[in-house]
Amino acid sequence: MRLLAGIVTEVGSDVKAFKIGDHVGVGTYVNSCQDCENCNNFLENHCSRNVYTFNGIDRDGTVTKGGYSTHIVVHERYCFKIPDGYPLEKAAPLLCAGITVYTPMMRHNMNQPGKSLGVIGLGGLGHMAVKFGKAFGLKVTVFSTSESKRDEAINLLGVENFVISSNTQQMESLKNSLDFIVDTAAGDHPFDPYLALLKVGGVMAVVCFPSEIKVHPANLNLWIKSFELIFSGARTLAGSLTGGTKDIQEMVNFCAAKRIYPEIEIIKMDYINEALKRLVDRDVKYRFVIDIENSFK
Amino acid sequence: MRLLAGIVTEVGSDVKAFKIGDHVGVGTYVNSCQDCENCNNFLENHCSRNVYTFNGIDRDGTVTKGGYSTHIVVHERYCFKIPDGYPLEKAAPLLCAGITVYTPMMRHNMNQPGKSLGVIGLGGLGHMAVKFGKAFGLKVTVFSTSESKRDEAINLLGVENFVISSNTQQMESLKNSLDFIVDTAAGDHPFDPYLALLKVGGVMAVVCFPSEIKVHPANLNLWIKSFELIFSGARTLAGSLTGGTKDIQEMVNFCAAKRIYPEIEIIKMDYINEALKRLVDRDVKYRFVIDIENSFK
Repeated sequence: MRLLAGIVTEVGSDVKAFKIGDHVGVGTYVNSCQDCENCNNFLENHCSRNVYTFNGIDRDGTVTKGGYSTHIVVHERYCFKIPDGYPLEKAAPLLCAGITVYTPMMRHNMNQPGKSLGVIGLGGLGHMAVKFGKAFGLKVTVFSTSESKRDEAINLLGVENFVISSNTQQMESLKNSLDFIVDTAAGDHPFDPYLALLKVGGVMAVVCFPSEIKVHPANLNLWIKSFELIFSGARTLAGSLTGGTKDIQEMVNFCAAKRIYPEIEIIKMDYINEALKRLVDRDVKYRFVIDIENSFK
Repeated sequence: MRLLAGIVTEVGSDVKAFKIGDHVGVGTYVNSCQDCENCNNFLENHCSRNVYTFNGIDRDGTVTKGGYSTHIVVHERYCFKIPDGYPLEKAAPLLCAGITVYTPMMRHNMNQPGKSLGVIGLGGLGHMAVKFGKAFGLKVTVFSTSESKRDEAINLLGVENFVISSNTQQMESLKNSLDFIVDTAAGDHPFDPYLALLKVGGVMAVVCFPSEIKVHPANLNLWIKSFELIFSGARTLAGSLTGGTKDIQEMVNFCAAKRIYPEIEIIKMDYINEALKRLVDRDVKYRFVIDIENSFK
């Protein structure tokens, strides 16, 4: 809930890209140095002076309030045009969950029809990875710990395959079959059972927050056990973290063109404590969006 | 010492690429199924029916003897033309040490002048990575545990930077500075101190054989410590394992064109026990090559 979408009410005299009345969004950061190698490559998300949209400290000392505020002042570089007709409330989750999975998918050429995608965890990030996967023409397998998500995965999101990750037989049958896995799982979990499902040269993108990452060499490279050599398929474990400003606008435009909409539940501000409780219980499909405007009427 | 180079003495009636008298080499494998997705993509090194050149069991039940034999019968697919003028004894190490580092360097676009390469460990693999790096126009940093290799690294191999990996101050000064690291270190070692040296999007290729791979999430993706977010630069840990037949021939041709020669010590067969002892003591610069022909005269 750090990110937000809204309508421009005022513009500075130097602003070129936006005018009053435009629909815009702001992602997970509102500033960066604009001068380093990362900023120059539109990787502002990796700038060491990147300022978070929520609970960050901006250049002028202001503590940022993110989407919990009625108004925000932000440099146009960190503002994204929401195309006409795209619902504002649906735009907000694109700017965190959306870009977080879109960035590694694009970086690893997963926008090529026919490739096979695995998605670990079907939450806010996972369901966006599935939607991008379907839009790119991929064959999508969802890995979940909970049978309760099967119906929605198959019938609402249209995935080809739904696998309970504790089902070793099903996992075994998928060995060496996936081109790419995006790992959105909450909490600590093993990486090896998923790495083993990748084809030669396959990539597993880590966008979750584990407390440690441990991988068996046999799944990445090569392992010598007594005198036996156990080979792997030159697999790759790749970190990824939100995205840069160019990629964010490209992703928003893609979602508008392909009619990709996050699944959301709209709440008002006075429901926030209940919503946070439900988040902890993982009881949300798939993102809460706070309707600030109607919260103060 | 599994791989070998020699002269063709006989060819089968269907052989098209070679004739008697040709200089050829054989890499780490002598067979594969020739029918799977990996073989069809010239990734025979990842075929599940790949047969090692040494101590493998071939289709007909033969135990392969590799470079320890006076003659070898091999399918032309697994045979590589050694260009005229390239010394046969120098060609042999290309087919294992050379291709092992060449494959990940090419896969991750490290043949672009001006990029910065880190090489962990200056042995058979490491010194070839340095030679390729110099030929590609990269800025090369070697990481070693031993001061004794500094002179050779700088004056013989021409590296720009030689770092003792236990020197934390020097390591700290290299943070976020490298595009790519190839890890050829012998034995177990930590990965985090090296990952931290990569730029955003940087790749560390693992071609060594650790017994486990453990990475701190802060170096790959993101880490939440109490309420503080610690970000990384979307770094990648990539496994890699020798190379496919197309890449091997390409690499051999590149070495001939650029006059890249492994540093070797030629021995005769009766020196083999001593050589193996010295290998264990890491007392070789940088590969032993057995002169089979002159061993039996």
